[in-house]
Amino acid sequence: MRYLDEIRKKKPLIHHITNYVVANETANLTLCLGALPVMAHAIDEVEEMVEHAQALVLNIGTLDRTQIDAMLAAGARANERGVPVVLDPVGAGATQLRTDAAREIAKNVRLAAIRGNAAEVSILAGYRADIAGVEALGAAENIERVIKELALKLDCVVCATGPIDHVSDGRHVARVANGHPMLSTVTGTGCMCTTVVASHIAVAQDRFDAAVHALAAFGIAGEHAAAEADRKPGTFHQELYNAVFALTDDEVDAEKRVEILREE
Amino acid sequence: MRYLDEIRKKKPLIHHITNYVVANETANLTLCLGALPVMAHAIDEVEEMVEHAQALVLNIGTLDRTQIDAMLAAGARANERGVPVVLDPVGAGATQLRTDAAREIAKNVRLAAIRGNAAEVSILAGYRADIAGVEALGAAENIERVIKELALKLDCVVCATGPIDHVSDGRHVARVANGHPMLSTVTGTGCMCTTVVASHIAVAQDRFDAAVHALAAFGIAGEHAAAEADRKPGTFHQELYNAVFALTDDEVDAEKRVEILREE
Amino acid sequence: MRYLDEIRKKKPLIHHITNYVVANETANLTLCLGALPVMAHAIDEVEEMVEHAQALVLNIGTLDRTQIDAMLAAGARANERGVPVVLDPVGAGATQLRTDAAREIAKNVRLAAIRGNAAEVSILAGYRADIAGVEALGAAENIERVIKELALKLDCVVCATGPIDHVSDGRHVARVANGHPMLSTVTGTGCMCTTVVASHIAVAQDRFDAAVHALAAFGIAGEHAAAEADRKPGTFHQELYNAVFALTDDEVDAEKRVEILREE
Repeated sequence: MRYLDEIRKKKPLIHHITNYVVANETANLTLCLGALPVMAHAIDEVEEMVEHAQALVLNIGTLDRTQIDAMLAAGARANERGVPVVLDPVGAGATQLRTDAAREIAKNVRLAAIRGNAAEVSILAGYRADIAGVEALGAAENIERVIKELALKLDCVVCATGPIDHVSDGRHVARVANGHPMLSTVTGTGCMCTTVVASHIAVAQDRFDAAVHALAAFGIAGEHAAAEADRKPGTFHQELYNAVFALTDDEVDAEKRVEILREE
Repeated sequence: MRYLDEIRKKKPLIHHITNYVVANETANLTLCLGALPVMAHAIDEVEEMVEHAQALVLNIGTLDRTQIDAMLAAGARANERGVPVVLDPVGAGATQLRTDAAREIAKNVRLAAIRGNAAEVSILAGYRADIAGVEALGAAENIERVIKELALKLDCVVCATGPIDHVSDGRHVARVANGHPMLSTVTGTGCMCTTVVASHIAVAQDRFDAAVHALAAFGIAGEHAAAEADRKPGTFHQELYNAVFALTDDEVDAEKRVEILREE
Repeated sequence: MRYLDEIRKKKPLIHHITNYVVANETANLTLCLGALPVMAHAIDEVEEMVEHAQALVLNIGTLDRTQIDAMLAAGARANERGVPVVLDPVGAGATQLRTDAAREIAKNVRLAAIRGNAAEVSILAGYRADIAGVEALGAAENIERVIKELALKLDCVVCATGPIDHVSDGRHVARVANGHPMLSTVTGTGCMCTTVVASHIAVAQDRFDAAVHALAAFGIAGEHAAAEADRKPGTFHQELYNAVFALTDDEVDAEKRVEILREE
């Protein structure tokens, strides 16, 4: 499927309930991708807003109790209306509030996908992992098994991103080797990646295929940006938007480094 | 009037109660223009803060009930002290909360100006319009009549921006044809435009003239930025600040594309 | 001490309770410096989060009552665990809420350092000063005496930044002449500077020396960025991250313009 063409043609509305650190950056990333962002967090409007959306992103990066309630309400309405929900469990494992909130959302909302770093996803799956603030230091040992288990349990696509990204739908596991170390010099590139996943799923039939394409596309955009701005994080940040805006499906097909491990 | 010179000389303080998506970007735009931004939203301080300001921006981009109360309190105090108030009804029409809040503010606060996209302004005026999140899809048919009516009713200047901007004070209507499609690839350029309008009104006698100049100036800055960075939204975003910072009144006079329809 | 090397080696976690205007920018600055940022404000998690941090930044830039409570709770826990706390009293003097909050925090939390503009620091020390929103217009007359008094009273390092930065630990006063006027064309450079101070103190034994190095380093980064982008605030903003990322201890030693007034 030509995902980027499809996103640019359909312009899906991506409703974000997200943290104030990256609200601007993820909105801009959404626009560069060709989708439409809307950021709305108030319990008084999230249910109505999500009805008009083609995907809902729940990102717990700067969480408080009020926001958890809004996420649960928006998630329930999204489920009723068939709007796919993507969870970004930012900082799960760093505090009890975040661990509990991520698990509460995963339990109460039917998720289409989860995108976190390997530590966050491990925590969500019930394993131990090391996290400093929102930075993964160490994850569960066999991350491929962990995400497969979690995907099976929640019947959704699970993405654990890092130097190599891993994706599973509970049956298959994919490894995506695109990306660049400069992505870790800019805050919120994980959150941006979640937005890319949500925008792909918003127009997709096959969510596993969509998530794999999303991670490859975002990784390739990172490679393109780094080619313009290696060792300069400020410049890289700007070039990342340029690269996403300019990226084509043909480039993704040509440059993706994806290995799919099919279930025997 | 040489508005940009005047703003840079007087450095008006622009108090924003605004959304967390564009708080940084509008603060930077205010600085580039030569004015001083302050972002303060707590009901405990907005009345005191606005007393020291030369304009107040009320932007409902990420709204909740607490913020509406703060906006009403700040607006009332601004009215008492003669501080001009500019409303940006972001997403009016997208949810009942936003539609109601925009109307409640317009009813209870004496506004100097309103700046929204054509759909938001149409909704505020009581017409139907199509909006996806915060993106105008379709507005009331005769936007010039709509803004004239609304301006007359509220005794303020109404700006509906888009490919062509329309401004009215209830008697005249102006069309401003400056701008560039790249402005729609960066989130918050509408909110930035509202800040430019507020900064102009902060130093102006004639608010209609000030708003027209503001829209022309911001549109020209967009054209200048696009000349440096067409098809590159990340670069365009940065060049937009550069362009606003460098813009002169002489350039605005030379490059503005404004048509004023005087009342017969 | 080779502070930048040390920060890049130890990667201290800097927990920020900060304003939504600069949350993204200070997180990115932290990363460029080589430290790890985490932004967390909820009373339900700040105490747990700060236990894992090597420094805590309390920045009152967009304050409300809820946030003050979270700051006091996080500060108390940081004190118990020996995590150094750095206060940025943004806008103290602009409203009673901010003045009171800054003083309440200074009274109840044992601070390692304070970083504000001269007006904010003067207000915090109990003097009169002129402030427009968050912009210092005039400070207490003898800023060196003021910060020395305040440093002595609170037993912490006090930094009053401006065209010349002043630092005192109650015994010595340092003047740091690095920096560039372009720093005032971008919002949040003061907040970024506070983050640099906190990151230095996180790895330091001698907090006065660390603060002086931090101000020199950030000022030099501003000079480097301006060399790439003078008169272009958008470009300067991006180059500032590049400059901080590339800065070395050797450059700071070679380019710092610091005068230390030792107590006779």
